[in-house]
Amino acid sequence: MKAINKDIETTAGYIFPFEGGKHAATIISLPYRADTWQDAGSVALLTFKEIIFNIIKYERVVLIIDPKISYDIVKQFTHPQITILREYYNDSWARDNTPIFLKNDSEVIGVDFGFNAWGGEYNGLYQDYSDDNALSKNILLDLRIPRFAKKDFILEGGSIHTDGEGTLITTSECLLSKGRNPHLNQSEIEEILKKTLNVQKIIFLPYGIYDDETSGHVDNIACFLKPGVIAVATCENKDDPQYERSKRDLEVLQHETDAKGRKFQIVEMPLPEVQYMSEQESAALKPNDKAIARIPNRRLAASYINFYMSEKFILLPAFNDKNDKINKQILDDFYHGEKEIIQIPSRSILLAGGNIHCITKQIPFSDEIEIEPKEIK
Amino acid sequence: MKAINKDIETTAGYIFPFEGGKHAATIISLPYRADTWQDAGSVALLTFKEIIFNIIKYERVVLIIDPKISYDIVKQFTHPQITILREYYNDSWARDNTPIFLKNDSEVIGVDFGFNAWGGEYNGLYQDYSDDNALSKNILLDLRIPRFAKKDFILEGGSIHTDGEGTLITTSECLLSKGRNPHLNQSEIEEILKKTLNVQKIIFLPYGIYDDETSGHVDNIACFLKPGVIAVATCENKDDPQYERSKRDLEVLQHETDAKGRKFQIVEMPLPEVQYMSEQESAALKPNDKAIARIPNRRLAASYINFYMSEKFILLPAFNDKNDKINKQILDDFYHGEKEIIQIPSRSILLAGGNIHCITKQIPFSDEIEIEPKEIK
Repeated sequence: MKAINKDIETTAGYIFPFEGGKHAATIISLPYRADTWQDAGSVALLTFKEIIFNIIKYERVVLIIDPKISYDIVKQFTHPQITILREYYNDSWARDNTPIFLKNDSEVIGVDFGFNAWGGEYNGLYQDYSDDNALSKNILLDLRIPRFAKKDFILEGGSIHTDGEGTLITTSECLLSKGRNPHLNQSEIEEILKKTLNVQKIIFLPYGIYDDETSGHVDNIACFLKPGVIAVATCENKDDPQYERSKRDLEVLQHETDAKGRKFQIVEMPLPEVQYMSEQESAALKPNDKAIARIPNRRLAASYINFYMSEKFILLPAFNDKNDKINKQILDDFYHGEKEIIQIPSRSILLAGGNIHCITKQIPFSDEIEIEPKEIK
Repeated sequence: MKAINKDIETTAGYIFPFEGGKHAATIISLPYRADTWQDAGSVALLTFKEIIFNIIKYERVVLIIDPKISYDIVKQFTHPQITILREYYNDSWARDNTPIFLKNDSEVIGVDFGFNAWGGEYNGLYQDYSDDNALSKNILLDLRIPRFAKKDFILEGGSIHTDGEGTLITTSECLLSKGRNPHLNQSEIEEILKKTLNVQKIIFLPYGIYDDETSGHVDNIACFLKPGVIAVATCENKDDPQYERSKRDLEVLQHETDAKGRKFQIVEMPLPEVQYMSEQESAALKPNDKAIARIPNRRLAASYINFYMSEKFILLPAFNDKNDKINKQILDDFYHGEKEIIQIPSRSILLAGGNIHCITKQIPFSDEIEIEPKEIK
């Protein structure tokens, strides 16, 4: 009988690793909400499939499937590189509603923060998020990964990025929002993040992407390409409200240093033209009073920064925009073949409010982690 | 790949079977709450173990173990007749916080009602019952049993008993309590029970046992010995408030008929002497502000009716009381060896507020149900 999962009392001694290192697996959950995903997820399913089958060329995928999703869909994912877990969840943003994984030399643990659908009663995107809020604990149970519970602090994975060397970047717009932990001030929030995630320095960028329904998650505006190097989404149109936002964030980073005292090298990744939801796309949704309305001409928070990276690959969004190629080239030039840059048209995910980074979550590699192919449970 | 669990839209065509028929398994979860169970469950663990190892002589046990329980305890239950599932729960009353199972000729399904710790904000026994409320869905997922969700109706398994032939008994004291579904009147409650559980007749006994913290669950005052025959807890002391309660319930039953039009045969099962919590027993608890206080001299709701039955056995509480033997004899006389009557001293469970029936839940047998021995998940 294998070591069993358990609740642990402290995260001391575990680090929060850089996303671009070696992974044990990537977690993805399939979409089904008819008020959020066109045709109850069937349009985006093709994009999810493209993403999943690209990832399994490199690493295992832990695919979370809600029992509301039909078996016809489930069986499309039978593959020795895919571990399927049946779990309940309210929506399929693995970045935000699955554990944040830490590791030491041999072991991986999962931190289970509170989840309130990006704002709870203040400005949450849907009302019942109880399945989302219980998802991390259920995943950790099923994967037999020890859990550290920090449910009294609301935090989504997409609102933080780390270099794995003690630096964390986030946005004030999100972390200081009334929809997160309004009873705490910035220094209290910093203390909790430092203590729970074992980081030494936290940089608060003022803004995320304009009109981003996540209250401005950092993972749409800036990320580490490697320790010491940060990519930032920049705006070419001075008349766009995003222009000032990106400029202010850049200014902060230009004057900051990381946990090790290094100045940052900054790589600018130009945003695509502003994108809007069409009449037809909105008509493919079934709105109801339990989730925010996704109406025609709604501005979408499109950004190339919302890519997913692992040790050997990057999955980069494409928007059918002139900057698609430019951004791919930027990453190719930076990595020189160290990572394969795979570009995937991801408008079907953008329409639901996120992108490739939002639907993925890395489980870092460790010597003792073992995620076996499983029969569907 | 085996058929997968799913959420189903209706319970039509499924019956709610009598507890005393053939089971696929018995569900039990282990205790750990230090505010409810002496020495955080270690006293009651011996009683649970006695119960579990008696049951597995006859049928499989699905043993639910919270990750807060140590591996030293878990490994005591390694046995081919025990399927261990790791799940989170707030307390270990499988009768009340696990699914209510229905069946048709071949298949078993689970109904997942709302759970609010026996009264929610009105008179619930502890405040955070979110893990309990999510437990049924997680069990059904893991056992691959289809789930019918009825979360907008609060119901515990211990508040109803059925003859499996269309009759349901319950108590007004519990089902009409402000702590359950106060927005519904009696006839609306009847309609929901009839439609969800496919029963035709519901008998509301006025009372449960005096000062029972479940708001008077029927499973402490009356149960079916078989279709047409009901056992009732009776009180020998006219000065005890229980005397009138049992008398009134008996009167109702004497004038009632079941779903098939039969008058009831009634078997009286005399209660033990009134039992109280001792100073020492109370001192073995760690009270806190998240659960009701269990103070010395608290009256305990001891009743022989809270036994668990299957096709071939009954697990009957013993209280170190002169009526222990009498009640065993009553059941032996009734069943003539058809069921083995196994009597188990159960004060350690009584002290936490329930008894053997409260910690057990039957999964009825069907041709297609398959509960395999599992590695610990």
